[in-house]
Amino acid sequence: MKNLEKKIEELAAAIEKELIALRRDFHQNPELGFEEIETSRKVAAYLEKLGIEIKTGVGRTGVVGILQGDSPGPVIAFRADMDALPVTEKTGVEYASKIPGKMHACGHDGHTAILLATARVLSQLKSELKGTVKFIFQPAEEGPGGALPMIEDGVLTDPDVDAIFGLHLWPGFKVGEIGVGYGAIMAAPDQFTLKIRGRGGHGSAPHEAVDAITVAAQVINGLQHIISRQIAPTQPVVVTIGTIKGGYRHNIIADEVEMTGTVRTLSPAVRDEVPERMEEIIKGITSGFGADYELEYTKLYPPVINDQKMVDLVKEVANKVLGPDGVKIIKEPSMGGEDFSFYLEKVSGAFFRLGCSSGPETSYPLHHPKFNIDEKALLYGVKLFCNLAFSF
Amino acid sequence: MKNLEKKIEELAAAIEKELIALRRDFHQNPELGFEEIETSRKVAAYLEKLGIEIKTGVGRTGVVGILQGDSPGPVIAFRADMDALPVTEKTGVEYASKIPGKMHACGHDGHTAILLATARVLSQLKSELKGTVKFIFQPAEEGPGGALPMIEDGVLTDPDVDAIFGLHLWPGFKVGEIGVGYGAIMAAPDQFTLKIRGRGGHGSAPHEAVDAITVAAQVINGLQHIISRQIAPTQPVVVTIGTIKGGYRHNIIADEVEMTGTVRTLSPAVRDEVPERMEEIIKGITSGFGADYELEYTKLYPPVINDQKMVDLVKEVANKVLGPDGVKIIKEPSMGGEDFSFYLEKVSGAFFRLGCSSGPETSYPLHHPKFNIDEKALLYGVKLFCNLAFSF
Amino acid sequence: MKNLEKKIEELAAAIEKELIALRRDFHQNPELGFEEIETSRKVAAYLEKLGIEIKTGVGRTGVVGILQGDSPGPVIAFRADMDALPVTEKTGVEYASKIPGKMHACGHDGHTAILLATARVLSQLKSELKGTVKFIFQPAEEGPGGALPMIEDGVLTDPDVDAIFGLHLWPGFKVGEIGVGYGAIMAAPDQFTLKIRGRGGHGSAPHEAVDAITVAAQVINGLQHIISRQIAPTQPVVVTIGTIKGGYRHNIIADEVEMTGTVRTLSPAVRDEVPERMEEIIKGITSGFGADYELEYTKLYPPVINDQKMVDLVKEVANKVLGPDGVKIIKEPSMGGEDFSFYLEKVSGAFFRLGCSSGPETSYPLHHPKFNIDEKALLYGVKLFCNLAFSF
Amino acid sequence: MKNLEKKIEELAAAIEKELIALRRDFHQNPELGFEEIETSRKVAAYLEKLGIEIKTGVGRTGVVGILQGDSPGPVIAFRADMDALPVTEKTGVEYASKIPGKMHACGHDGHTAILLATARVLSQLKSELKGTVKFIFQPAEEGPGGALPMIEDGVLTDPDVDAIFGLHLWPGFKVGEIGVGYGAIMAAPDQFTLKIRGRGGHGSAPHEAVDAITVAAQVINGLQHIISRQIAPTQPVVVTIGTIKGGYRHNIIADEVEMTGTVRTLSPAVRDEVPERMEEIIKGITSGFGADYELEYTKLYPPVINDQKMVDLVKEVANKVLGPDGVKIIKEPSMGGEDFSFYLEKVSGAFFRLGCSSGPETSYPLHHPKFNIDEKALLYGVKLFCNLAFSF
Repeated sequence: MKNLEKKIEELAAAIEKELIALRRDFHQNPELGFEEIETSRKVAAYLEKLGIEIKTGVGRTGVVGILQGDSPGPVIAFRADMDALPVTEKTGVEYASKIPGKMHACGHDGHTAILLATARVLSQLKSELKGTVKFIFQPAEEGPGGALPMIEDGVLTDPDVDAIFGLHLWPGFKVGEIGVGYGAIMAAPDQFTLKIRGRGGHGSAPHEAVDAITVAAQVINGLQHIISRQIAPTQPVVVTIGTIKGGYRHNIIADEVEMTGTVRTLSPAVRDEVPERMEEIIKGITSGFGADYELEYTKLYPPVINDQKMVDLVKEVANKVLGPDGVKIIKEPSMGGEDFSFYLEKVSGAFFRLGCSSGPETSYPLHHPKFNIDEKALLYGVKLFCNLAFSF
Repeated sequence: MKNLEKKIEELAAAIEKELIALRRDFHQNPELGFEEIETSRKVAAYLEKLGIEIKTGVGRTGVVGILQGDSPGPVIAFRADMDALPVTEKTGVEYASKIPGKMHACGHDGHTAILLATARVLSQLKSELKGTVKFIFQPAEEGPGGALPMIEDGVLTDPDVDAIFGLHLWPGFKVGEIGVGYGAIMAAPDQFTLKIRGRGGHGSAPHEAVDAITVAAQVINGLQHIISRQIAPTQPVVVTIGTIKGGYRHNIIADEVEMTGTVRTLSPAVRDEVPERMEEIIKGITSGFGADYELEYTKLYPPVINDQKMVDLVKEVANKVLGPDGVKIIKEPSMGGEDFSFYLEKVSGAFFRLGCSSGPETSYPLHHPKFNIDEKALLYGVKLFCNLAFSF
Repeated sequence: MKNLEKKIEELAAAIEKELIALRRDFHQNPELGFEEIETSRKVAAYLEKLGIEIKTGVGRTGVVGILQGDSPGPVIAFRADMDALPVTEKTGVEYASKIPGKMHACGHDGHTAILLATARVLSQLKSELKGTVKFIFQPAEEGPGGALPMIEDGVLTDPDVDAIFGLHLWPGFKVGEIGVGYGAIMAAPDQFTLKIRGRGGHGSAPHEAVDAITVAAQVINGLQHIISRQIAPTQPVVVTIGTIKGGYRHNIIADEVEMTGTVRTLSPAVRDEVPERMEEIIKGITSGFGADYELEYTKLYPPVINDQKMVDLVKEVANKVLGPDGVKIIKEPSMGGEDFSFYLEKVSGAFFRLGCSSGPETSYPLHHPKFNIDEKALLYGVKLFCNLAFSF
Repeated sequence: MKNLEKKIEELAAAIEKELIALRRDFHQNPELGFEEIETSRKVAAYLEKLGIEIKTGVGRTGVVGILQGDSPGPVIAFRADMDALPVTEKTGVEYASKIPGKMHACGHDGHTAILLATARVLSQLKSELKGTVKFIFQPAEEGPGGALPMIEDGVLTDPDVDAIFGLHLWPGFKVGEIGVGYGAIMAAPDQFTLKIRGRGGHGSAPHEAVDAITVAAQVINGLQHIISRQIAPTQPVVVTIGTIKGGYRHNIIADEVEMTGTVRTLSPAVRDEVPERMEEIIKGITSGFGADYELEYTKLYPPVINDQKMVDLVKEVANKVLGPDGVKIIKEPSMGGEDFSFYLEKVSGAFFRLGCSSGPETSYPLHHPKFNIDEKALLYGVKLFCNLAFSF
C-alpha cells in the first residue's frame, strides 16, 4: 500500500496544472441545472480520451464513466455535481464566469475537475486496481435534483455499486483539512404551504367572523412546540415560516391567511413525524376556533446519512493523505440539503467536506458572489478519491 | 297623587328614628346566610305587630309579609336581603357588630330596615292602596342564594306578583341619588375547574412526554380570544383563571395542570355561549398536542336584567322624590352577581342602587371591613319604595 | 303644547309628498364626500325660498340655515349629512341612482329631506318659536369627515348653539320606532399600521436571524389581552388586525411583517389608553426577542356620547309622537363611527336611530347595494325634529 | 503490544470471580452521596493490599490510588463513581440491596468493581507500565457532585493528570459493545425558579389587576422560541418548566405565579446563552404587561465533552478488545448530566458507555428499581481500561 500511495501522490502531482485548468474552464462557462450541455460534452470527451467506458444522457444531462481494474473486485463510485447557480460573479478573478447571471458559486466546477483528474490517475493505475470504479457526473444538484433521475436511469446498477463517495469544497475548513461526520450530516429540506381559513366580516364585529389572522398567530405559536417539546432535543429540526399574507383592509377581518415555509430534518423518522405533528397542531388549533386549514407538504431531498464504516475508511485514508490534524470530526450537521442523499439511501457511502480556504478571499460562504477556493484544495481531493479507490 | 306623596313624606319622616334604630339593631347582630334566625324572628314580629299577614320559613329562613290594600289592584313586591358576611368589622362605630368575624358589610341591615319601615308606612296608607304589596325578606344573598329557595316555596305566587323591586345601598352614589340602569345591570357569576392532562416524563426528554404545562399555557392564551374575538364587544364578559397548579419537581414533566376560574356574563345567550366556546377551544388545543382535559362548569346566579318600563317607573318616581339631578343612568353594569336575578327571570321589575355616601367614612367599598352608610339614605329608600307602591 | 303638536302634525302631513320627492331627487343624484355641489345648491335654494338666512361653503360643501323665532330663546341645531357612498345601487326602484358607482346607501338622502321639511314646517311656525334653530347640512360624513371642518368654520357659534340633535335612518327598527341610548352610542374608529422588524436570514438557520413572523404572532396574541384583561369588561373595545404581510420566500426568514388594523372605543379615556397599552405590549414583546417595531396610530372620529338630559328630552318627545312602545332604549352601542361626535364634544345633544323598515325590502343593512327605506319613516323624522325644537 | 494484550486478557480473566464478588458486595451495601464510608473503606483497603499508594478523604469521601509504572511516562487517570440512589430495589436477585430505600440503580457498584480490578491487573503489570495511573473513586455523582470537591482537593495534580477516562454501564448497548461519541455527549443540567409578579384583584375586574397567570402563560409560550428559533437547531437544548403554581381562589386574580424548571445544554457557549435569552424574553413579556419577575438560575454540572483524539484512542483500543462491530459511534448525546464533565474541563479525556444488557432482565433503564446488568460486562470494562493505560 505504501508504494501505491506514493504512486498516487506522484501521478496526481504531475497533473495539478491540468486539474486547475479544467476547473477554471468549467468556472468560466457555468451552466444551470439540466442545462449542463457543454460541461457534459467536455466531461465525456475527457473520459473517452482516457479510454474509459462512458454513458451520456444519464438523468438527462449526466455522464457516467466506468473503469474496470485488471483484477476483479468491488464496485466503488465517486460523484461530482456539475451545475452552476443563477448568481452574478463578483470575485474579479481573471477566470471569472463569462456568463452574466450564472456562476459556479458552490464549487461544482472544482468537484467536476477533481473527479476527472481522479479518473485520469486511476486509469493510469488500472493494472493494480481490483474491481471497478464508476465516475458519476451529475446535473442539477442545486435543484430540482439530478441524483434521482440518474438513479432511475440505472447509475447504481450494472454493475451494482458497493459504495459511493462524494465531497464538497468547504470554506469552513482550511486547505489540507477535511470534515467528516458520522451518520446524518445534511438535512432533508422539505417545504409547505399552509392556508388558514376563517370567515370574513367587518373589523368592528369580530364576533360575527372567524379571524384568520388571530388563528394563524396561534398556529404559528403552536408550531414552535414541535421543536421545543415534541421532537427529541438531540434531533436537529427546523420549522420556518418564511412568508405570511392575509387580509384586505385595515377594518375588514381577514378570511384567509397563507403561509409558506421550510422544514429541515436529519432522520427519516423525524422527517415523517414533523408533518404529522404539524397537521395535528394545525387541525387542533383551527378546530378550536371554528377555522379551517389546507396544508400542502412537499418532500424534497432526504437527509444525507453517512455509513459508520465508510466514514472510518475516509478518516483512515485522510489520516494518511492529510495527517491526523487534517481530519476534523463534524459534530454539528449542516441544515442545508444535498441530493447525494438519494445515493446513500441505496448504497453505503460517505460524503465529506474538503477544506478550500487559506485567507479572506477564499473564505466567502457558498453561494456568495465572491465565493472562491484556494485551488491547492483540488489536488487533495484527487488524492483522497484515488486512495479511497484502493482502500475500499 | 301630590297629596299622597306628601302623606308618604310625613309618615316616613315620622319614623326615621325607628328606621335607624332597626338598622343598627340588625347591624349589631349580623347572621350569615341561612342562619338568619334572630333577624327573621324580629322581621316577622315587626310585620305581625303592623297587622300584616306573614309567612315564615320561606326558603328556609326567609319571611314574607302580605299587605292587601282596601281596593283591588296589582300585586307589587319589594325584596330585602338579610344575611351578613364573614368579615370582622373595623368601623369603630358604637353600634358595630357584636359578633367577631361577622358583619353587615354589604348593607343588608339597611335593606331590611328600609323594607320594614316601608311596610309600616304602607300599612298606614292601606285605605288608599289599590292592590297588594308583598314584602320579601330573603336569606343568603351572598351565597349560596336564598332567592331560588323562596321562589320554589312560592314567594312569587298566591297571589301572583306583577312586578318586583329591590335596591342596594351603594357607596358609589351620594345620599340623595340613585343609580338605575336599563337592561342587564349585574352579571351572572359562574365558575369552573379545568384540568389539562398530558403524560409525565423526565424533564430532559420532552419528546417522550406530553407537557401539561406548555399545553395549559396555550389554552390560557386561547381562552383570551373568547373575549377579544368571539363575543360581541358590546357584551361585557370576564373569563378569569384564578388558580393554576401542576407538576412535581423542576426536572419532571408535569402530567396534569389544574386551574379554577370565574366567568361573568350579562345576557343569558352569552352565558350559554361562553362555556361552549371555552370547551371548543380547550378541546381543539389539547387535541392538537395529544393532551386531554376535563372541564367542570357550574352556573350560579343569572344576570340581573331590568325591565325598560319598570326602570322608567323608578326614574319617574325618583325624579319626584330626589329631583332630576338625583337620578343617574347607569351605563356600565356591575360585573358582580346578585340573586335578585332569579325573581326577574319570573316577573318584570327593576333593581336600583341607593346612594349612601357623604364623605370618606361612608365611601368604603362594599364588603370592606370599614364599610358604612350615611343613615340619611335609609329614609330615601323608604320613600322610593312607598311611592313605587302607589305609582305602579 | 298640545295645540302646537297638532299644528306640527298637520303642517308636516301636508308636505309629505314634497318630502318624499325631495328624498327621491337626492337619491337619484348621489354625490360623494366633499363633492356635494348640486345637493348643496338645492338645499340652499330650498332654504332661501323659505326665507331662511343661509350660509354656504361652510366646511367646504356644507350649508347652514338659521331661522330666528319671533321670541328670544335658546339656539337649537339639527344636523343632516348629505354625502353618498361609492356603491352601485341594486334596488331596482324607479328612483334609483342615476350615477353608476354612487348611491345613497346610508340614508343621507332621507336625512337631508327630513331636515329641509323640518325647516319648512318650523318656518311656518316662526311666530310661535322662542329662540333660534340652526339647520346644518354637512358634507362627507362617510369620510374624511365634514363635521370638523364645519365646526372650524364656526357652525356652532354666532349664535352659540345650546343643543344639537341628529338622527340616522335605521333598518334595525321598524317605521314608527326610534332607538335612543344614554351615553356613548357609537364608537371612535381609529386605525393603525404596525411594522415588526427582525433580521432576515436563511430559513435553515433561525438562530442567526430574528424571525419577524414568529415575533409578530406573539404580538398578535399579546394584543388580545388588552381586551380580555386590561380594559374594563363593561367598556366595549375592538382591536382588529385586518391585514398582515411579511417575508419573501418559503426558505428565507422574514425581516419584517406589516400589519394594519382598526381600534374601536366608546370613551375618550379608553380611546387614549388603548394605543398606550398596545405600544407597551408591542415594545415589551419585540424587545424580548431582539426585534423592533414601528407603530403609526391615527385617531379619526371621537365616540358619539349622548347627554342624559337630551336623551330624556328625545324620549319625552318621542313618547308623544310615536307612543311609548315606539321608544326603544339602546343598551348595546354600535361599534361603527359617526362624525356627529365632533358636535357633541362641544355642545350637549343626542343622536338617535329612526326606524325605517317594514318588510324584507327595507331591511337590508346600511351600505348594502339593496338598502332602501320605507318612506313613511321620513315624516316621523320631521315631526320629531319639529317637536324637539319647541320642547327644548 | 500483542503480547501485552494477551497478558491483560489472561490476568483479567483470572480475577473475574473476584470482580463479580466485589460488585455484588457493593451492590448489597449501597451508600448515598457523601455517605460512602464503608465503600471508601473497602476501596482503600483493596488498593492498599495491592501495594498502591492511596489518599483517602479526597473530596470528603473519595479515594485515590496512584500506581507508578517502573518506567517514566504520562499520567493517566480512570474514574469510578461510588454512590447509590434513594431507590428501593425490586430486582429480586439474591445479592439485592440489604438497605431498604437505597440501591445501586445506576451501576456505580459495577464501576467501582471494574476500577478495583483494573488496579489489580495493572499493578501486576507494573514493570511494563510507562508512566503513572491514578484510580479515582469519587463520591456523590448523583448529586450534589463529588468531582468538583475532588478536583479542589487536588486529584488532578501532583502528579498532573494528562488524560482521564471514565465509563458508564449502559443497558442501551449489549454486553460486548461500547458506545463512544465525539465532542459533547452528556448535557449540563442547570435549574431555575421563576416568579411572575402581577397585581391581585377581584376576578370580575381584571382591568384593575395585572393577571400573573395570563402573563405567565405568555412567558411559557415565549420561552419555547429559545429552542425553536434562537439556538442553532444542531445544538441540543431543553428548557422544561416542571412545576407551576399560582393564585388563591377561582374568583381572585393571582398576583404571583411560581415556576421551576430544568435547562439542558451541550456546549458552554449555549449554556451561557440560554439564561440570557430566558431573561430577555421574560423581561420583555412581563414589561409589556406591567408585570415583574424574579429569575433564580443555578448552574450545576457542565456538559461532558470528549476529546477527539481520546475518542479515537478508545475506538482503537475497543476495536481490538471487542472487535469493530462492538464499537458504536454515538451520534445523539444523552440529555442527562454527569459530573465527569468537571474533569474534562481540566484535562483531555473520554467518557464512554459500556454495554451491559443481554436480555429483558438486564434491559431496564438506569434508575429503575429493577435495573440490573449482565455481569459479563464487567470484565470488558477491566480490559478496556487496562489496554487504555498502555495505549496512551
